[in-house]
Amino acid sequence: MTTARFYHAGCPVCVSAEQTLLNLLDPAVKVEVVHLGDQPQRVAEAEAAGVKSVPALVVEDQVLHLNFGASIDDLK
Amino acid sequence: MTTARFYHAGCPVCVSAEQTLLNLLDPAVKVEVVHLGDQPQRVAEAEAAGVKSVPALVVEDQVLHLNFGASIDDLK
Repeated sequence: MTTARFYHAGCPVCVSAEQTLLNLLDPAVKVEVVHLGDQPQRVAEAEAAGVKSVPALVVEDQVLHLNFGASIDDLK
Repeated sequence: MTTARFYHAGCPVCVSAEQTLLNLLDPAVKVEVVHLGDQPQRVAEAEAAGVKSVPALVVEDQVLHLNFGASIDDLK
């Protein structure tokens, strides 16, 4: 089973992208939604995965940055 | 059935995003892949849908810009 992590920060761009994207994904894809505003201790993990801005979807070693809500630097 | 259009221009960023994203989508989502380098007459259609850069996925009236391959202006 494919697993993915969707990182966001609650911003309007993030919420919009989340709604659009998650509705399109294969139901077999398990998505963990991580709100970096609520879980700032996970910013380092996101950055290590290559996330430069949110919203972003991380799948295995690939990062898809979706539109632009906020820079990861602004979440530290 | 949901239909989506994936606009790209053959760039490495585009191809990578296409492979990552399309593998995750629900098989019930019908995706039309549009190569704007091969079909420059469709640049105006992409722009009208709100596409600012490629690769981008358009779903109904939502645009998801995925990473950044090229500006739509550079495809005109």
